[in-house]
Amino acid sequence: MIKVGINGYGTIGKRVADAVALQPDMEVVGVAKTRPNFEAETAVEKGYPLYAAIEERLPRFEEAGIEVAGGVEELVEAADVVVDACPSGIGAENKAMYEAYDTPALYQGGESADLVDVSFNARANYSEAADADHVRVVSCNTTGLSRLLAPLQETYGVKKARVTLVRRGGDPGQTGRGPINDILPNPVTLPSHHGPDVNTIFPDLNIDTLGMKVPATLMHTHSVNVQLEEVPTAEAVRDLLAGESRLFLVPERFDIDGAGKLKEYAMDRGRPRGDIWENCVWEESVSVEDDDLYLFQAIHQESDVVPENVDAVRAVLGAADADESIERTNDALGVGL
Amino acid sequence: MIKVGINGYGTIGKRVADAVALQPDMEVVGVAKTRPNFEAETAVEKGYPLYAAIEERLPRFEEAGIEVAGGVEELVEAADVVVDACPSGIGAENKAMYEAYDTPALYQGGESADLVDVSFNARANYSEAADADHVRVVSCNTTGLSRLLAPLQETYGVKKARVTLVRRGGDPGQTGRGPINDILPNPVTLPSHHGPDVNTIFPDLNIDTLGMKVPATLMHTHSVNVQLEEVPTAEAVRDLLAGESRLFLVPERFDIDGAGKLKEYAMDRGRPRGDIWENCVWEESVSVEDDDLYLFQAIHQESDVVPENVDAVRAVLGAADADESIERTNDALGVGL
Repeated sequence: MIKVGINGYGTIGKRVADAVALQPDMEVVGVAKTRPNFEAETAVEKGYPLYAAIEERLPRFEEAGIEVAGGVEELVEAADVVVDACPSGIGAENKAMYEAYDTPALYQGGESADLVDVSFNARANYSEAADADHVRVVSCNTTGLSRLLAPLQETYGVKKARVTLVRRGGDPGQTGRGPINDILPNPVTLPSHHGPDVNTIFPDLNIDTLGMKVPATLMHTHSVNVQLEEVPTAEAVRDLLAGESRLFLVPERFDIDGAGKLKEYAMDRGRPRGDIWENCVWEESVSVEDDDLYLFQAIHQESDVVPENVDAVRAVLGAADADESIERTNDALGVGL
Repeated sequence: MIKVGINGYGTIGKRVADAVALQPDMEVVGVAKTRPNFEAETAVEKGYPLYAAIEERLPRFEEAGIEVAGGVEELVEAADVVVDACPSGIGAENKAMYEAYDTPALYQGGESADLVDVSFNARANYSEAADADHVRVVSCNTTGLSRLLAPLQETYGVKKARVTLVRRGGDPGQTGRGPINDILPNPVTLPSHHGPDVNTIFPDLNIDTLGMKVPATLMHTHSVNVQLEEVPTAEAVRDLLAGESRLFLVPERFDIDGAGKLKEYAMDRGRPRGDIWENCVWEESVSVEDDDLYLFQAIHQESDVVPENVDAVRAVLGAADADESIERTNDALGVGL
C-alpha cells in the first residue's frame, strides 16, 4: 500500500484524501490542516489521522477538542509521497521540508512551474513524472485544456488553439470574492496565464488564451477554437472525444444548459460533493468550419484535478503505467458519466 | 426639420427620442406607447406628443390621466420617418402600416434581416440605405462588431474573425430574466446569430461567433480574435482604433476593470442614463500574435444603437452623407469619451 500524506485539507486536499482512500493500492497516512474548523472535525470523523500544518498551532486543535496525531513533519516523514494542497505559494515554502525528509511531493497548479521538475497531466505526459521529486499537477483549467488537446493533437495535429476562459469568480464557499453583476476581462492584458501553462504540458503547442471573470461559482466555461492540421468532420471529433475516459460529452437529449444542471446531474448520480471530475463538452457545440474546430466545455474547478493527483502518486513512484493508473483511478472513483 | 416619429417607447425608443430631440435638423413629432406606465408619464413631461400604439387602448391612457395626442396611425402619417423601437417581432407586424402611409421606417436588430431592404451601420454601409423604405439598424452586438471590423477590414483586410460574445443576461429592469450564478453557452449550437448578422453588413466577411449568457446586466463583453491579411503592430491597431469616433479606447491609467466602472465613468461624465454610445475597447488588451489580433470590448446594449438610429434617419432621407451625419449626431449627443 502506498502511504499518501495530504498537506492542506481544503477544497482540493479533502477531495484528494477521499479519492486516495478509495484506491485499492493506497492509504491516507494522514492529513495536515492549519486551523481547527469544520473540515478538521470532518477529517477526524472520517478516520484520517490529523496533523497540525503549523506545529505551533497544535494547542489550538487540542483546545477545540480535536485529536491531533502530531505536527506536519511527522506526516511528511511517514508518507511515501505527499500531496501538497496548500493555498498558492505555500507549496513553494514547503518544498525544503519535503526535501529534508526525501519525500516526493505533488503540488497544485497555483504553484509556479519553475518550482518543480515536471508539470503533470495524466492523459498528456504521465510518464514524464517517473522518479521526479517535485511534480505540479496543473490547474483545473489547464487540466481541462490538456485533456481536450491531447487527443486532438495526436489525431489531427493542432495548428493553433485560441481559447476564451469564462471563469467563475470564486468557489461557492469563497464569500469574499467577486465580481457581482459584472463581466471582467481578467487579465485585461494577453495572454492569460493559461496558454503558457498549457505549454508546460505541450511545449510546442501554439495557443493563445483570454480570461474573463463573471458572477458565478459553479464551474468555469471555455469557448474553444482549435485550428487543425487535418480537418475531420464534427461527427468524427465527437466520436474521438467520446472515447476519452475523462471527457463527458453532454448529450443534447439531457437538456443541460449550463453548470447548474450539470451539478444537479452529478448530485442525482450520487457524486460525492456533487463533483464532476470530467470535462463537460456540449456535444451539440462541437462544430467544424473551414479548418476551425469549435466547442464549449465546462470545468468543475474544485474536482477535475482530483483523479490527476491520484495518478500522479503512482507516476512518481513508478507504481503503474499511464493506462493502468488512469483505469484504476477511474474505476475506484467512478469516473465516467 | 425632419419630422421623426418613434413607435415604441421602451429601452431604445426613449433614448432615440431624446437623441433626435437634440439634433439641429430633427424634431420629435411624437412617440407611441402601448401602456400608460412611468415611461409614458415621462414622455409627456418631456413634451413629446404621446400616441397610443394600440388604438383601442386609448381610453386606458385617459383613465390614467395621461394626455394622448391620438392613435399610432396619426403619428405615422405625420412623420417623415418612423423609428420602430417595438419589441422583437412587432416591427414586422407594423410594416404594412408604414407602407400604407408611405412612411419610411427604421427597425431594430431584433427584426429579421429579410423584413427590410437594408441592414444598417453608419460606419460600415451608410450609403446603402439611401432611398430605402425599410431599414434595419442592426443589434447592439452587431453594431459593436461592425464598428470594429470596418476599419480593420479597410486597413488590413480580414482573413477571419472569431468572436466569443459574453452577453449580459438581461437589462437592469428586466427582472424576469436569468441566469443567476451560471454561465450558459447560448446558443449551445454554433454559430450564434451574431456572425450571420454581421454578414448582413459585410456580406463576404469570414466570421464565426459563439454566444454565452452570464449573470450580469450592465454591458456585453466580447472576446475578439481577428486574423488579418496584413499584420500590423498592436500599437498601429491602437492608433487606428483611436481615430474612430465611436470607439472608446479605455486607457490603462483609468483603472477600469469592467462594465461597472465604465458605467460609473459615464455617469460621472454626466451621460444621460449613464449611456455609453461607444464601443469600449480595453487599450491594453489590443494584442497581435502571429497574424492574430486580439482584444476585449464592452458594448452597452441599451444605447450603442442610438446614434446609429439617428444617422439612419438622415441616410434614408438623403439628408446628409455619412461623414456629415456621423459628425452632426456625435456633436449633438456628445459622443466621444
